[in-house]
Amino acid sequence: MPMRIGVDAMGGDHAPGAIIRGSLQALTDFDHIELSLVGDENVIQDHLASNGGAPKRCHIVHASEVVDMSETPTDALRRKKNSSIMVLAKMAAEGKVDAVISAGNTGACAAAAQLRMRSLPCISRPGIAVALPSFHGPVTLCDVGANIQARPQHLYEYAVLATEYAKMVLGVESPRVGLVSIGEESLKGTDVIKRTHELLSSDGAIRFVGNVEGRELFQDKCDVAVSDGFVGNILLKFIEGLSEGLFKTISREFQDDDATTKKKFDDALHRVWQRHDFSEYGGAPLLGINGVCMICHGRSEERAIRNAVKAASTFVEHRFNEAITNRLARTANSGQSGTEAPTVANIG
Amino acid sequence: MPMRIGVDAMGGDHAPGAIIRGSLQALTDFDHIELSLVGDENVIQDHLASNGGAPKRCHIVHASEVVDMSETPTDALRRKKNSSIMVLAKMAAEGKVDAVISAGNTGACAAAAQLRMRSLPCISRPGIAVALPSFHGPVTLCDVGANIQARPQHLYEYAVLATEYAKMVLGVESPRVGLVSIGEESLKGTDVIKRTHELLSSDGAIRFVGNVEGRELFQDKCDVAVSDGFVGNILLKFIEGLSEGLFKTISREFQDDDATTKKKFDDALHRVWQRHDFSEYGGAPLLGINGVCMICHGRSEERAIRNAVKAASTFVEHRFNEAITNRLARTANSGQSGTEAPTVANIG
Repeated sequence: MPMRIGVDAMGGDHAPGAIIRGSLQALTDFDHIELSLVGDENVIQDHLASNGGAPKRCHIVHASEVVDMSETPTDALRRKKNSSIMVLAKMAAEGKVDAVISAGNTGACAAAAQLRMRSLPCISRPGIAVALPSFHGPVTLCDVGANIQARPQHLYEYAVLATEYAKMVLGVESPRVGLVSIGEESLKGTDVIKRTHELLSSDGAIRFVGNVEGRELFQDKCDVAVSDGFVGNILLKFIEGLSEGLFKTISREFQDDDATTKKKFDDALHRVWQRHDFSEYGGAPLLGINGVCMICHGRSEERAIRNAVKAASTFVEHRFNEAITNRLARTANSGQSGTEAPTVANIG
Repeated sequence: MPMRIGVDAMGGDHAPGAIIRGSLQALTDFDHIELSLVGDENVIQDHLASNGGAPKRCHIVHASEVVDMSETPTDALRRKKNSSIMVLAKMAAEGKVDAVISAGNTGACAAAAQLRMRSLPCISRPGIAVALPSFHGPVTLCDVGANIQARPQHLYEYAVLATEYAKMVLGVESPRVGLVSIGEESLKGTDVIKRTHELLSSDGAIRFVGNVEGRELFQDKCDVAVSDGFVGNILLKFIEGLSEGLFKTISREFQDDDATTKKKFDDALHRVWQRHDFSEYGGAPLLGINGVCMICHGRSEERAIRNAVKAASTFVEHRFNEAITNRLARTANSGQSGTEAPTVANIG
């Protein structure tokens, strides 16, 4: 039986064009996948037509509304019950697809998923995990935007979820977990950080290395970094800005050189850039949700979507949620509630 | 009358050696300055001796204790009344020096300053401002660690303080102020962010450009970025880590090239690196304190300290506090209280 993946055709800065082209590319590259493109039927039809028509294994599911990137999740969920994101989440909840993908409004996507798909029984709040391309291998940062006012229990759960993710999906043998804070000492940071530090220290199954400062994310101190969605999202976007800026500045240093030298420099920068390009990683999983939901960067182009489809299918194959459920059933600190109100993160 | 600056000889990763050498360098370079080195008298004597003896305009003030980088400010202030930081703050409060400088425990330094020197009457909480070397000129980020659980009023005051700083000290004509958050829309972010957004929008004297995401700090969207000390400090250290990491990774791309090419690349990187080196900027002012307090990076070497002395003297010459007091006397939103308990930021 093919793997069925639902794609939000309308979400993202380059939707629907780039989303649909990326989906078609995925269908070409991966025969075991069947895609449902969710969004305005006519718009999707037109785009498919201009790309040589709808291939086999590609279905269209109509959704009459679209959540804008700028809407707050609360408004989006209340006002637009038929948005592509909500329809997608409903399909996942009803088992009509094995995984869903969206490059749309991150907060709305996380909220819709939690409202329809719900959290795993043992998890209070799902969190978005991103594999940051660090210089010694990926560092998994969780949460990067699903839950912007996280409680200690939420952060503890992110440590558990991201640890399993790093193990199962990224192949890190025994992931070291750091808590993003402003000083290495356990007594430093906000009250939430201090309490989380206690929770993480108390679970022997977590390889907790203590607080990590921003600098240390790049010094091979941890494989997993835990933060609330506010700090995590700011850091994530900060990385992009700083990297882009630095690359520009550096290449400017060579603009007066001869063509050969200039090309040599630019090629080198391009190689480094590619190793740090989010597109290569595809989407970021919403960990702790009862199903598989990959959230893509709003700026995702064709290639990022194609890779997100691949990442989603890998994620499903790993039976991640079973592992998590078993893992948390074994520990004392497991989630107090899987029935909390859906996370509504006010982010873009 | 010379400008009298007090230096914490014992604070910092490279104290007292680098601190004392940097101070001596400053005395050589700036003849209008008189320095008081505060710390263990014998230790300072020995270091001065090994550097050719104490020059004129250099005094030693004994302090029997030192605050470790790892101590929490609360403990440090309670347990070590005779620490170099506390003695220094007392000297400033008593008008024995015009400015104080420390590369020691940031949180303890900010707390000691607020305890002894107090805030300006119109300010509730001082904040540390750092001029981030962005690619289109400096972006002043405030706060980066004095106040890790800031309230909207505090963040509003940081906008006012950092705006005046950018104007008077960095020469930005009409600084644009951004609020560090996770989405551009006013409705996005935590409750504190939303309320701060209202306060900033309501003050016509602030050139508020709305929320800024991490990426936008490098896209010439604002000259001043406001955040609480937790987020600000994480960002600050993150910048260092990411920049260092990127520079290493990039230069590794050229390791197999011939010596000439390799040198060309490394020189270019070095030029960029220098433009982004905190040492060039010296210390970061604790804005809103009733006096002048420059907080230096814990890793400060000789050059950074020499530049911090220079920055402190410039800061004094600008009569910044007078300007702030006049500015806030004119606005409705001015600080509700200058008598809050001292900020105790649990950071390193």
